Amino acid sequence: MAKMRSSINFRLIIKVIGLLLLIEGGFMLTAVPFSLYYGESIWPLVIPAIFTAFIGLILYLFTWKSRQLNIGKHEGYIIVTFSWVVISLFGAIPFILSNSIGNYSDAFFETISGFTTTGASILKDIESLPKGILFWRSLTHWIGGMGIIVLSLAILPILGIGGMQLFVAEVPGPTPDKIHPRITQTAKRLWGIYVMLTGIQTILLMFGGMNLFNALCHAFGTMATGAFSTQNTSIAGYSPYIQYVVILFMILAGTNFTIHYHALHRQFKKVRGNEEYRNYLFLLIGISLLVGGGLFFLSELPFEESIRTSLFQVVSIVTTTGYVTTNYLAWPMVLWVIIFLLMFTGGCTGSTGGGIKMVRQMLLFKNSTTELKRLVHPMAIIPIRLNRKVIPQNIIFNVLAFFVLYMLTFAFGTLFMSILGLDFQTAIGSVAATLGNIGPGIGGVGPVENYAAIPFVGKWFLSFLMLLGRLELFTVLILLSPAFWRR
Amino acid sequence: MAKMRSSINFRLIIKVIGLLLLIEGGFMLTAVPFSLYYGESIWPLVIPAIFTAFIGLILYLFTWKSRQLNIGKHEGYIIVTFSWVVISLFGAIPFILSNSIGNYSDAFFETISGFTTTGASILKDIESLPKGILFWRSLTHWIGGMGIIVLSLAILPILGIGGMQLFVAEVPGPTPDKIHPRITQTAKRLWGIYVMLTGIQTILLMFGGMNLFNALCHAFGTMATGAFSTQNTSIAGYSPYIQYVVILFMILAGTNFTIHYHALHRQFKKVRGNEEYRNYLFLLIGISLLVGGGLFFLSELPFEESIRTSLFQVVSIVTTTGYVTTNYLAWPMVLWVIIFLLMFTGGCTGSTGGGIKMVRQMLLFKNSTTELKRLVHPMAIIPIRLNRKVIPQNIIFNVLAFFVLYMLTFAFGTLFMSILGLDFQTAIGSVAATLGNIGPGIGGVGPVENYAAIPFVGKWFLSFLMLLGRLELFTVLILLSPAFWRR
Repeated sequence: MAKMRSSINFRLIIKVIGLLLLIEGGFMLTAVPFSLYYGESIWPLVIPAIFTAFIGLILYLFTWKSRQLNIGKHEGYIIVTFSWVVISLFGAIPFILSNSIGNYSDAFFETISGFTTTGASILKDIESLPKGILFWRSLTHWIGGMGIIVLSLAILPILGIGGMQLFVAEVPGPTPDKIHPRITQTAKRLWGIYVMLTGIQTILLMFGGMNLFNALCHAFGTMATGAFSTQNTSIAGYSPYIQYVVILFMILAGTNFTIHYHALHRQFKKVRGNEEYRNYLFLLIGISLLVGGGLFFLSELPFEESIRTSLFQVVSIVTTTGYVTTNYLAWPMVLWVIIFLLMFTGGCTGSTGGGIKMVRQMLLFKNSTTELKRLVHPMAIIPIRLNRKVIPQNIIFNVLAFFVLYMLTFAFGTLFMSILGLDFQTAIGSVAATLGNIGPGIGGVGPVENYAAIPFVGKWFLSFLMLLGRLELFTVLILLSPAFWRR
Repeated sequence: MAKMRSSINFRLIIKVIGLLLLIEGGFMLTAVPFSLYYGESIWPLVIPAIFTAFIGLILYLFTWKSRQLNIGKHEGYIIVTFSWVVISLFGAIPFILSNSIGNYSDAFFETISGFTTTGASILKDIESLPKGILFWRSLTHWIGGMGIIVLSLAILPILGIGGMQLFVAEVPGPTPDKIHPRITQTAKRLWGIYVMLTGIQTILLMFGGMNLFNALCHAFGTMATGAFSTQNTSIAGYSPYIQYVVILFMILAGTNFTIHYHALHRQFKKVRGNEEYRNYLFLLIGISLLVGGGLFFLSELPFEESIRTSLFQVVSIVTTTGYVTTNYLAWPMVLWVIIFLLMFTGGCTGSTGGGIKMVRQMLLFKNSTTELKRLVHPMAIIPIRLNRKVIPQNIIFNVLAFFVLYMLTFAFGTLFMSILGLDFQTAIGSVAATLGNIGPGIGGVGPVENYAAIPFVGKWFLSFLMLLGRLELFTVLILLSPAFWRR
């Protein structure tokens, strides 16, 4: 660990962001083959790719001679927040140049929605867009999914920069169960699993009749828990087989990736011993059966369709993916209220999902029930355990502070969206769905609507909420804290 | 302090509840003079008064020979919860006998709404009720207001029963700043202030043209932060003078009563030093100006009326009183969303107000901002202070557990009310307004509507939420905890 420095190393920050822009430019070019194959103009992708890479190169060279220090906590937080903003600023350009989106506010909203793996869209007719642009749109999910930071953790070491603090900033969840002592190795391994799962899903989707383009785009959307689709009807128009494949890979994407690592290495005891994972699966199955039963009895859908539709929607919302196969707002009210409440759950820590996350919910619940025991036995010290280990008090404090900030942000967000003249359900729906990185909400931003009608200022505000939610509040809010900038 | 006993003393619990029923019967009789004066039948009051007192006497005599032990924690919790339920069960009888309310579910709802100082009503035409019954209705507020428990703290000592634990159960708020080491004295003093303020308000209301009956009923409703009125239009039909009087006494009722005690004893330094009180006043003034400005500019009301209406509604909701002078749901949406969010604030600890309460909000907010500082300086121990004193960690845990349970109850309550077929706004409005002991909510239970249309099961459920909110969750929930009943 580097010792506390007296000033923030801005040259280093600019250098890392420059490098990220170089990489982003490279990623943009991967969409070009699809433009060529579908006979579209390649320039709306090539021009911004070159421009982004060029700016990145200038920033990188400009800071070439900066001392090769370890990235400290302060630099880590700044890099994480700014890199998400900067790559979204550049990533929006192809939408403008291709005339896919008419103004920059909308293009930025769509792009940060991609990179934060939210999947909230302002596009009314997705299918009218060039395929190359749609590929780039889905790719923003995939890049954001595992975190461009985790991605770059495998590259930064070439420059001799260790990134432990970055990982702390990226995954501030309570249990970053380390697979391997060296963070770089960890990042590479998690990335390997991510690529592998994306590949398997792509192949399975192609078995179901999708072409490579659609299969890749939907695999990106699923594995990143993002939910941009290439179809106006999301997954609704696809076969039950494809819907089951998407369900399975949403569950995998919402799982802590260290669980996948353990499973691949046949360490099943570690998989079974993970309380968050057990809880996650029980919740998914339990609520899906409940909602499925409700659909079967109240809406008189066929049995298989009830269970499939329910499972799809529950998994999609809990993992914060946001794909839809049905308009859940047309369900009996109690069922869509369940869907709305699930927007406050979220997947496992260390997954690509957003939201409050399962482990936090568990610690919150455990603390509350433990408090009742504490009141009965005021003299006893009753610790809170997770995976049979006592959780230190400072982690409980952090989780509780997170929850309070989350609810505060939700309340103030609702108020802000109300000021813009949205109706009540659209206001709370849009805030819950963007802060939780889900995508579709309730009211005017429900599963068959989108964010096109949100006023200009609202789109920038919701963009901020997506960033806030994706970076687990603290990473962004700490930059607003005076204590951060002191000394 | 009594040492831990191995079993719960049920004889003692029954004895105390018997005594409370005796007192309740006596209170019922105080409504009889109004029945006589207005030429109504006195039997709907006299019969239940005698019946209630008789049952109380039997319970009391039945347990006469129980040992005169101190009331332990366990007995305290049971007494508090059950006494609220039992006096509501008996208190509902006059509504039935007078044919004011057609069925017992509705009568119980109205009565527990009174005793919990919620003020949620199922009556469609209040003015058609006999005056004696309306007086009893308002009196339930007044009895519940200071807490029948605190009331009885001044009487129990005659039986040689000390009640320290009762006070703990009644006011589990974080800072029961003791005025006097002896709890009985404290209760008597707080009760004296309560009676005095009620008296002053009654006189001030009579100056404004109210007769004694209306003045007393509205003073009961104000000082208890309850809000039952004798008029169908609540306070809307009264003069601005009366509205200002009600505003002032709502503020006083939502203030920690130890503040009043200090003020009466000219200990102004203690008054000024109270952070919760300062925060409470700043919030009331700040939000009132904001909403008042909104009304002035958006609704084009006259300036004085904008400020008065805003002040009245903000104070009414923050103190969890629930009186109305206007249909706030007809305001521009952002303004009534502010009102809705204020339903999650609540007055000061040690006041008659319900809800989450100011001091908890402050500790929640401080913990979250402190967490940001802790992330910047992970090695530093940064305590949370209130009134310049360091708050012990176990109190922070309790407050955070309270908040989580409150939000969980709110979420599950909304779900439950949705199952009953209520629309979304009515579901969240009815739960927020009963759990917070406020009264009017949003949607179908807004300020010009009431709870008459809520289904039968919903009324019992909301009755439970009123109890839960009034007894600060833990007091009731602890009875559901297996640890409580073990050994």
